[in-house]
Amino acid sequence: MSGVLLRKIVVGLLVAVLLHLPAQAADPLPSWKEGPAKSAILAFVEKVTKPGTPDFVAPEKRIATFDNDGTLWIEQPMYIQLVFVLDRVEALAPQHPEWKDDPLFKAALDRDLKALGEFGARGLARLTAATSTGMTTEEFETQVEDWIEAARDPRFNRPYTELVYQPMLELMSYLRASGFKTFIVSGGGLYFMRPWTERVYGIPPEQVVGSSIEIEYQMQDGKPVLMRLPKIRFIDDKAGKPVGISYHIGRRPLAAFGNSDGDLEMLTYTTAGPGPRLGMIVHHTDAAREFAYDRDSAFGKLDKALDEAAAHGWTVVDMKKDWNTIFPTEREAAP
Amino acid sequence: MSGVLLRKIVVGLLVAVLLHLPAQAADPLPSWKEGPAKSAILAFVEKVTKPGTPDFVAPEKRIATFDNDGTLWIEQPMYIQLVFVLDRVEALAPQHPEWKDDPLFKAALDRDLKALGEFGARGLARLTAATSTGMTTEEFETQVEDWIEAARDPRFNRPYTELVYQPMLELMSYLRASGFKTFIVSGGGLYFMRPWTERVYGIPPEQVVGSSIEIEYQMQDGKPVLMRLPKIRFIDDKAGKPVGISYHIGRRPLAAFGNSDGDLEMLTYTTAGPGPRLGMIVHHTDAAREFAYDRDSAFGKLDKALDEAAAHGWTVVDMKKDWNTIFPTEREAAP
Repeated sequence: MSGVLLRKIVVGLLVAVLLHLPAQAADPLPSWKEGPAKSAILAFVEKVTKPGTPDFVAPEKRIATFDNDGTLWIEQPMYIQLVFVLDRVEALAPQHPEWKDDPLFKAALDRDLKALGEFGARGLARLTAATSTGMTTEEFETQVEDWIEAARDPRFNRPYTELVYQPMLELMSYLRASGFKTFIVSGGGLYFMRPWTERVYGIPPEQVVGSSIEIEYQMQDGKPVLMRLPKIRFIDDKAGKPVGISYHIGRRPLAAFGNSDGDLEMLTYTTAGPGPRLGMIVHHTDAAREFAYDRDSAFGKLDKALDEAAAHGWTVVDMKKDWNTIFPTEREAAP
Repeated sequence: MSGVLLRKIVVGLLVAVLLHLPAQAADPLPSWKEGPAKSAILAFVEKVTKPGTPDFVAPEKRIATFDNDGTLWIEQPMYIQLVFVLDRVEALAPQHPEWKDDPLFKAALDRDLKALGEFGARGLARLTAATSTGMTTEEFETQVEDWIEAARDPRFNRPYTELVYQPMLELMSYLRASGFKTFIVSGGGLYFMRPWTERVYGIPPEQVVGSSIEIEYQMQDGKPVLMRLPKIRFIDDKAGKPVGISYHIGRRPLAAFGNSDGDLEMLTYTTAGPGPRLGMIVHHTDAAREFAYDRDSAFGKLDKALDEAAAHGWTVVDMKKDWNTIFPTEREAAP
């Protein structure tokens, strides 16, 4: 064999081998400024992934749970699902004169955000149950896909799926690259989130935990369908979050990410487990680039969880100080 | 560079590259005899995994669901969870004189298997709710682990976790190696299965769908716990199976495996989807090596689903004819 041929083979093989080696570790969190929040994430991941140490956690036990509204995407001036539902309430109101005598539906018709905020995740679920039932799960999925494709946020003039937080997308990718399985655990609707979470967050439908209505198996023209019933099944908020995690995941998370008092129990349950745990609260402090709100907000009220953060060792992310970027700059919010 | 050194480098690199290549395909289903059932599996998997063809299915959509009792492990002379529960009913009966006036509990105390079979998955869930509540999910998990470790099947004199079907273990491994995500969808208890499904089947807790009781988040001595309540939450059987699949997985399976009329709706829903689908029924035909039963069995009654199999194109596995081996020969039933 000639030296030239051998050299060609060696180069070819080297390329093949290099393609199988992990890339040189670049900064996995470029949108996070250097500071305590970024350091807390990096230190936690290093700890639980280092084989042969007492803090090492087997990959199958690396579960990370993320609240959605206000943690992964915007929730002001109201939950995005509420924007969707209010349009439907308005459209269906003529057929439901009784709605004006119900405080929740009256608040929806008046677009009284303060009152709607107080009805919380259960109010949202009740409105959804009343306006998006009597159809199959597939029909609802199409309805959500069409809406989310067409809707634009008036302030940012972008689709809502682009109003997700770039630093959180990086964090989810980094955790997955470190062997974690990432789940959404949200007070929002299970069937409202699933049509787009895989495309936007890289989280498949089976890793979405949320509030839900009852569905029923029926035969329609000889074909099996899953029909949405006007009845609330589960509210995945507050004390419901650790419960939803138990039903759906069956393991205590190693890390949990939230932004409001609705995440208090999930954070408490997560960080009460043995060994290293990461609890993190996204604090909305940037009125210029996004929004600034906490204790008095109608949506995403952050009060008790902020008071308890220090005692539990939770990291509070200051959006203004800790994040270089808020939203993805590209049109497509790739995972 | 000398030729010898170059040759050494080339050999080293070749080894490195070869280690990254898939192994030469051996028979992925050695416990399946050549025949229509094995051919149906192989043809289906080849079809949906061949890129560039109209039948190709993206890996994230490759969902396969498996019933547990009678499909992955034995269910005769009664469900294994019932063996567990009957012991607890007996132990707690002195504190519950009212049980002898309840037909379900009376059947449990009399070990009347025919009657218990008729109460089905709901009866099992009611007995579990009455005898394994007022404790935390972690306490129940320990109870199940201890029991499953110690219990032996009287006929086979082996732990129940070794009375799983070797051909089905191979099938699950083969599907996973072909990019499928495997789920259990069982009428049995969610919290009864999860402590051992990962070790025995390679199915992690978050991929187990089952019947469940209500749980509640509580603080106990300043620590968060999940308390089991004596209330049924969901029966994942019959028409409940496609519903449980929707809640938990959110996608229609590509393939479903069952053995009884409890799987009829799951099979119907699965194979009604577009494109290639695989529906399969394990028919217990081997009294010598396992059990022979179908239309008249108290547990795992297979009647309507057997009648409907041909019309739906479901493959009926004849355990006696199609399986070389029934149980794993090794003590450890590895996934």
